[in-house]
Amino acid sequence: MFFKVKTSEEVLELLKGFNPIGEETVFMGEGLNRVLAMEIIAGEDLPEFSRSSMDGYAVRARDTFGAVETLPALLDVTGEVLMGRAPDGIVSRGKAIRISTGGMMPDGADAVVMLEYCHSLDAGTIEVSRVVSPLENVISPGDDFKKGAVIFEKGCLLRPQDLGLLAGLGIQDITVYKRPRVAIISTGDEIVPIDQRPGPGQVRDINAYTLSAFCRQAGAEPLNLGLCRDSFSDLREMVAGGLEAADTLWISGGSSVGTRDLTVKVLESFGDMELLAHGISISPGKPTIIARIGGRAVFGLPGHAASAMVVAQVFLTPFLSRLSGERGAFEDNHFYVQAELERNIESASGRDDYIRVRLNKRDGRLFAGPIFGKSGLISTLVDAHGLVKIDRNTEGLYQGQTVNVMLFKDSRGVAY
Amino acid sequence: MFFKVKTSEEVLELLKGFNPIGEETVFMGEGLNRVLAMEIIAGEDLPEFSRSSMDGYAVRARDTFGAVETLPALLDVTGEVLMGRAPDGIVSRGKAIRISTGGMMPDGADAVVMLEYCHSLDAGTIEVSRVVSPLENVISPGDDFKKGAVIFEKGCLLRPQDLGLLAGLGIQDITVYKRPRVAIISTGDEIVPIDQRPGPGQVRDINAYTLSAFCRQAGAEPLNLGLCRDSFSDLREMVAGGLEAADTLWISGGSSVGTRDLTVKVLESFGDMELLAHGISISPGKPTIIARIGGRAVFGLPGHAASAMVVAQVFLTPFLSRLSGERGAFEDNHFYVQAELERNIESASGRDDYIRVRLNKRDGRLFAGPIFGKSGLISTLVDAHGLVKIDRNTEGLYQGQTVNVMLFKDSRGVAY
Repeated sequence: MFFKVKTSEEVLELLKGFNPIGEETVFMGEGLNRVLAMEIIAGEDLPEFSRSSMDGYAVRARDTFGAVETLPALLDVTGEVLMGRAPDGIVSRGKAIRISTGGMMPDGADAVVMLEYCHSLDAGTIEVSRVVSPLENVISPGDDFKKGAVIFEKGCLLRPQDLGLLAGLGIQDITVYKRPRVAIISTGDEIVPIDQRPGPGQVRDINAYTLSAFCRQAGAEPLNLGLCRDSFSDLREMVAGGLEAADTLWISGGSSVGTRDLTVKVLESFGDMELLAHGISISPGKPTIIARIGGRAVFGLPGHAASAMVVAQVFLTPFLSRLSGERGAFEDNHFYVQAELERNIESASGRDDYIRVRLNKRDGRLFAGPIFGKSGLISTLVDAHGLVKIDRNTEGLYQGQTVNVMLFKDSRGVAY
Repeated sequence: MFFKVKTSEEVLELLKGFNPIGEETVFMGEGLNRVLAMEIIAGEDLPEFSRSSMDGYAVRARDTFGAVETLPALLDVTGEVLMGRAPDGIVSRGKAIRISTGGMMPDGADAVVMLEYCHSLDAGTIEVSRVVSPLENVISPGDDFKKGAVIFEKGCLLRPQDLGLLAGLGIQDITVYKRPRVAIISTGDEIVPIDQRPGPGQVRDINAYTLSAFCRQAGAEPLNLGLCRDSFSDLREMVAGGLEAADTLWISGGSSVGTRDLTVKVLESFGDMELLAHGISISPGKPTIIARIGGRAVFGLPGHAASAMVVAQVFLTPFLSRLSGERGAFEDNHFYVQAELERNIESASGRDDYIRVRLNKRDGRLFAGPIFGKSGLISTLVDAHGLVKIDRNTEGLYQGQTVNVMLFKDSRGVAY
């Protein structure tokens, strides 16, 4: 077989060859964490009218010029702006109209004097003890966005405040990219379902649960197809079904070489299969297979839970962002914290090492403790808050050195 | 009214007076981002048997002592361990059994020689060119977790790998804290539903959408009760309904002083109402009301979308974590990045300022640009990636100074 071990960079590059998977229209209120498949343009000014941004009096700014506490300006109060209504008077020279935050500015007025600088002499007169400038405490039409402005570009991941802006503009239906559906198959004759008591030599299916949850965390929809024995025809049938039902297929390998070989044989039996990578020069995670069948990406992931999760964190995070249509999917969108390394770490050259680390805070300093257990141990992942990468051209890292820790999503237990 | 403006610290302290809201049992596979309401103890060793962590040959380590490439050890291969089965032979002196990663170690063997250090002379004999130590490439029973070990404490937020461990132990049902239900009411005579064309002086309801999405992001369930006119009886009825239906009630204020006063009056009309805070010494977000009615927290949030979101980010994030039962809910679980400030920022003493900032990366350095627009403008939040806090004892921050930026969840557009 052609030598297909790829570097991390090569793998990320070839994952760029896959495209977002389609669009759908959803109600804006359901748009959290969805990626826009359209550009959004303001159809109107926001706000559409001049508003007060304070509680106070709408005035002509020039009528306050020179006003100080010892020599206040005297203004006649001619009314009040009711919330949600057009004002029913105008502000002419020497006049003022009471206004609340968010109230519509009356014609003639160009500023608002805050309540605390106004003193009521009687029902119809106030003393203003401070100058206001034109437009002070006023939000003008289009201050948020002007009609015709591009407010969101295609590929934008929507946050709560972004939905708020859509609400403000009255945009109810939005076109977003579909959430990727991920078919997941667990293989290996040693794997049993979690509701079964494992016999000698058997273990329960871990990867189906870590990978499904990983998908959910990334905004994708896992489709757990279940366990498959090490049988060519069974696996081929499940793979065909998965490719039919989902946008990408993840086969979480039996950890044995036999199961891996079987996976490759099954993939090769699909006529248009293109093997993109057979091995990645990383540790853990080396025995990863990436193929393209019918335009869909198929991943053969290592059987060891920790290895599979490292591959998921490093490569499948940007891959799912890509399928989700996100701009900048291949920029590194992980969160990092800096910490001091607690121990030396050696590293073999020729591969990128991803060291699981546990964060500890002592005396206000953040430390990263490497977890050296075998990647077959799920506990090494459960104990870890994130990963430290040691580049393949680096021989190791030293105790005391400051490192960037790539955090697992929603890892807690450390205050930053 | 008693002077109830509180500092940030006082507010966080009083929020500790609220407790998790109850428990429920869910299937482990649905446990992502749920908080455990039980301690989890390993009911068995994980793994339960010795496993190979490599593809190779199960041997007695001492039989390889002295082996080097030029003088390999010769071993008889007596069989193969099948995946998911108990081995059917034992390894005695001078013997070896073929084994795959994850295979069950045969009796007699105490180590595995990796395939690449074994050379097949014939079907029944291998040359081993390297020494292995006892337990090398072997995972022993309980290496992950020993029976009886506490693997998760109460209050632990479950991540994908944590679910994987539960799967590995065959733990199917878990007791978790209920997700908090948050009733949300929008008030103010100027607010109209988003499907309505605003008339003069009217604006669409933004806060219901930002706050609902904020709740979802925090793992809570928003219950949007809709708009309420500035009417005592209408608002009282909605508040009573919200307290009935949800675990906490958020009244997103009309921005006007009239609506705020009405909110306080309505809350005071509940017999057991305790006003905890009437104003917080922060900006934006000062006109925030916090009360307790029937054991439930009621928040009167500012009407300005940006102010409401700052209060949500700073106070309601830990509050919802608290209701969710999370240990360390009041430790600061936000993500921070360090950036250089692009401009001077002045700050009034006596209050904590939360400055919205936009991150920019130039020449590999990260910069934070303050966004100075009025908090009535939703665009100031949409443009922002996070907040920089200026403590009330600090007069300002200087251009070029390194600041900690508290990131809004899922803010993108900057590679760190």
